[in-house]
Amino acid sequence: MRAATIRDGAIAVQEHPDPEPQAGELLVRVRAAGLNGPDMQQLKGRYPAPPGAPPDIPGLELAGEVVATGRGVLRFEPGDRVMALVAGGGQAELAVVHERAAMPVPDELDWITAGGVPEAFTTAHDALFTQAGLTVGERVLVHGAAGGVGMAAVQLATMAGARVTATVRDEAAREQIAALGINALEPAGFEDHGPFDVILELIGAPNLPGDVAALAERGRICVLGVGAGAKVELNLFALMAKRGRIHGSLLRPRSLEEKAAAARRVERAVLPGFASGDLSVPVTATFPLDKVAEAYERFAAGRKLGKIVLEV
Amino acid sequence: MRAATIRDGAIAVQEHPDPEPQAGELLVRVRAAGLNGPDMQQLKGRYPAPPGAPPDIPGLELAGEVVATGRGVLRFEPGDRVMALVAGGGQAELAVVHERAAMPVPDELDWITAGGVPEAFTTAHDALFTQAGLTVGERVLVHGAAGGVGMAAVQLATMAGARVTATVRDEAAREQIAALGINALEPAGFEDHGPFDVILELIGAPNLPGDVAALAERGRICVLGVGAGAKVELNLFALMAKRGRIHGSLLRPRSLEEKAAAARRVERAVLPGFASGDLSVPVTATFPLDKVAEAYERFAAGRKLGKIVLEV
Repeated sequence: MRAATIRDGAIAVQEHPDPEPQAGELLVRVRAAGLNGPDMQQLKGRYPAPPGAPPDIPGLELAGEVVATGRGVLRFEPGDRVMALVAGGGQAELAVVHERAAMPVPDELDWITAGGVPEAFTTAHDALFTQAGLTVGERVLVHGAAGGVGMAAVQLATMAGARVTATVRDEAAREQIAALGINALEPAGFEDHGPFDVILELIGAPNLPGDVAALAERGRICVLGVGAGAKVELNLFALMAKRGRIHGSLLRPRSLEEKAAAARRVERAVLPGFASGDLSVPVTATFPLDKVAEAYERFAAGRKLGKIVLEV
Repeated sequence: MRAATIRDGAIAVQEHPDPEPQAGELLVRVRAAGLNGPDMQQLKGRYPAPPGAPPDIPGLELAGEVVATGRGVLRFEPGDRVMALVAGGGQAELAVVHERAAMPVPDELDWITAGGVPEAFTTAHDALFTQAGLTVGERVLVHGAAGGVGMAAVQLATMAGARVTATVRDEAAREQIAALGINALEPAGFEDHGPFDVILELIGAPNLPGDVAALAERGRICVLGVGAGAKVELNLFALMAKRGRIHGSLLRPRSLEEKAAAARRVERAVLPGFASGDLSVPVTATFPLDKVAEAYERFAAGRKLGKIVLEV
């Protein structure tokens, strides 16, 4: 099979042996695979693939058809449309996925959009609901709302009856998000628009002092991305006075059982939102697998609204 | 009535009008009242009493007899032994307490020990169980274990089947805590003894980098005290990689309904531990109300094991 392959800090398509499904696994013919921030880190050599994942084939999510199944598979059969979070190896013609990590693709989603669902919607749902316990009527701030996770988060929070504010650096993307009925702000001065019960931090350290200042009593800050910096001076007494919480989270290093539990929650709570029209997957650009290097350049350039997806 | 009174940065006993119980309140003849860290801050002018509390009479906890009740009181009657968290005004001959904030004093506790129960055991129970969700078999680290909250926390965590490590600066106190079967360490180098699922931070900023380093996957750090400093440089990526949480908490500014809910949890989960022998209240020293200034000096001097209590 052919697969996006990282060698010496560059990415290109190369030939690899076909993977074989082991017990409980699906062999999936990948139709689409979204790009994510950790792919960029892996390309730079800063984020090695976890044990068990292909070391040189990036890709944390995929959508495609089941073409074969390992021993003991119960949930899917050949021909089924599935999408999944994987620990790596998604940006390839074939990939193996444990059946417990896979979700059915709703009829409403074509391959491209399905390829952009798992990482963004699992991350956003896990952070907002499983971790931060977001509930109806609460005030949510999403920093960096134009990315895949950010766009999933503003939609899920709105669907949950929360009042959503978003910061977006790019003016054009900000206007598009405002057109969805979201209170979209430029990042500077966001702390004057609080208080917020839940803050999703997708940018990093520069926002943290303002996040604590803008936090409501018993508010929760979920830190999911630190692209703008990881080290911050925190005033613990300010956090105590708010009785606030700071959560750090990463999806990729989680165990299969945790990813499976998250997938079950997404199946139950998120996928019906695509049928009801509450949720959609904004895709900025698609690239064929052969142009993977261009896709990575486009991702790294920023100023996008939603996902960049490889079409395989 | 006579009450400990803060004037111009000094504390002494002065005359005040007797308080009168309003609807739902108890008038309590105070028999004992524990000292706590916030009393020291209030004496220094750094922690004004919250609205509704006597501005110049300190004291966050008390034990005594009900001598009168306001309209609509259902839970207690004159003669009952009660103990309670209060927002201030506990270090006095008389105090008013809302009946929902009051707890019955277990038969096993004399006045002195009862006067040292509410703040320490409510704070420790709330942080370990309500907030951090501590459960059987988890590994707990209590920083500053020799104080009232710390001693309550090591006992409650042990009672819950957790494996408890404590840091204690004073060597004599450290040996006494080790004699209880607790793994008692000097503070330096504590991070080599992890990982810990729950860390109770009663000291402050200097420990935080080590706390994050010593945190287990999905671990929780509860920050309840910052006497050694509040400002810390935090590495958010380290917190993400552990999928850890930092909780800040204060008991005093909570609403009556939250204090009442915490009191019900303490009645149910903590008070039976005094009858079973799992819990005790170590008291370092007692002082009569007239010697309140000496009691404060003793508290500020540190090197104590457990509570300092005023006998009224």
